[in-house]
Amino acid sequence: MTPDMSTQAHAAAMYARDLTCRSLGIGLDKVAPGRATLSMRVTETMVNGHGIAHGGYLFLLADAAFAYACNSYGPVTVAQSAEVTFLQPAAVGDELVAVAVERAKYGRNGIYDVTVRHGGGRVIAEFRGHSVTLAGTRGPTPS
Amino acid sequence: MTPDMSTQAHAAAMYARDLTCRSLGIGLDKVAPGRATLSMRVTETMVNGHGIAHGGYLFLLADAAFAYACNSYGPVTVAQSAEVTFLQPAAVGDELVAVAVERAKYGRNGIYDVTVRHGGGRVIAEFRGHSVTLAGTRGPTPS
Amino acid sequence: MTPDMSTQAHAAAMYARDLTCRSLGIGLDKVAPGRATLSMRVTETMVNGHGIAHGGYLFLLADAAFAYACNSYGPVTVAQSAEVTFLQPAAVGDELVAVAVERAKYGRNGIYDVTVRHGGGRVIAEFRGHSVTLAGTRGPTPS
Amino acid sequence: MTPDMSTQAHAAAMYARDLTCRSLGIGLDKVAPGRATLSMRVTETMVNGHGIAHGGYLFLLADAAFAYACNSYGPVTVAQSAEVTFLQPAAVGDELVAVAVERAKYGRNGIYDVTVRHGGGRVIAEFRGHSVTLAGTRGPTPS
Repeated sequence: MTPDMSTQAHAAAMYARDLTCRSLGIGLDKVAPGRATLSMRVTETMVNGHGIAHGGYLFLLADAAFAYACNSYGPVTVAQSAEVTFLQPAAVGDELVAVAVERAKYGRNGIYDVTVRHGGGRVIAEFRGHSVTLAGTRGPTPS
Repeated sequence: MTPDMSTQAHAAAMYARDLTCRSLGIGLDKVAPGRATLSMRVTETMVNGHGIAHGGYLFLLADAAFAYACNSYGPVTVAQSAEVTFLQPAAVGDELVAVAVERAKYGRNGIYDVTVRHGGGRVIAEFRGHSVTLAGTRGPTPS
Repeated sequence: MTPDMSTQAHAAAMYARDLTCRSLGIGLDKVAPGRATLSMRVTETMVNGHGIAHGGYLFLLADAAFAYACNSYGPVTVAQSAEVTFLQPAAVGDELVAVAVERAKYGRNGIYDVTVRHGGGRVIAEFRGHSVTLAGTRGPTPS
Repeated sequence: MTPDMSTQAHAAAMYARDLTCRSLGIGLDKVAPGRATLSMRVTETMVNGHGIAHGGYLFLLADAAFAYACNSYGPVTVAQSAEVTFLQPAAVGDELVAVAVERAKYGRNGIYDVTVRHGGGRVIAEFRGHSVTLAGTRGPTPS
């Protein structure tokens, strides 16, 4: 599973357009076919009404890792559904790392598992995403 | 299901601390016991690498509505897990409305369904969240 | 949402071939467009290693209700994925009723919610199923 | 992760009471701490109205594997929720194998992934289960 040049170039082009990741400071650490690693620091505006990291941002980080993993083959692929479990809370200042790994591919569908960990190692969230590759799209950018 | 003063006051106090919702311009339109309606405008920094609204933000809006609905009774309640299905893409400028409704309550657990609609009415996402009320917490703020 | 003759005839034909439901004594109580009600009595061979009704059979009942609801329009439709939450255990002799209701339909996809209740009214399980209608199939039987 | 005598003895005692698995011919092939492998042959009464293996039985097999994996440590543990995706249909006569592996453990909760494969190797279903260990139960049998 060695990423080639086109996998990297494709991911970089997608990241350049990805204003969500760029505006939140989410870094694209690594991409390989069917895999991606992204990281995010929990900032002060990411807390919820209980003072802990908002589950929405934990999901967003996992979902972003899922997106880079399922788009790593080239054709435009989107999330159809996803499930997340929150194991432990995260706090402001925590550095989180999301690792997405492809679990299954069948027809135009895929299943990806993403684990979000605190930099120190403990698991914050487990995510499973279901992707679908759009019919008729073969290039790296949507028409 | 008429919201009383304390439901409103409790939600307002929670919203005052909710920097995620406030910084993203997510509005708290309505709260009642077991229900909440929130709204969000998709901004230019909410797009993903395909140029459409990032699924992470669609989830975040639904998750926020879920949080206000499951905390409407007072005791601190957190999300344990959630599932989301994306039906149609949303675009920059779209006004989205998330309506959360309690589906079941059993012991310290609850199930909430959230539908995210485009202002015009079409469904963007369907979300189901599982909550757990923290043991020993009765007040509006976690210790 | 008044079921017409063809909805009933179609469901009856499907039920005639449905050896799972027939061998388990699952009854097809009601079918209407996008909806179905099925019932099952928990028998002595439906217990798990803890002596309570096996979650597999609770899911199966909900899944069967989902199948009749999503096939109520005619074209062959299958389950793509499903999520179930177990709220309370069921015991041998319990009469369970599953009510499936369509939540959303978009393109060839559908979302159905199923609630499994004890005859007495308490909720045993909440289920959400995602269906897909097979392309090119218009008749009541798969080719 | 070497199973010791008590893991085996505990699983055997649970299987002796598990009338669902025994009546359906589901075999308990292997159990180790946090893991279990079970197998099932699709029989003629396991088909649905479309003539293929009922999704309910595919779920049931995965759920059973999940149960043996999450109970492998001793304390009574039950399923709280589960999600299943159906990748390919199975037919009468197919020999299916479900392998359950623990993904995460936190407090009294656990997450287990189960893959159901056709004997020939192709994946039939992917399942993720969430377990909870009942408070105050330490022995191998529920009170």
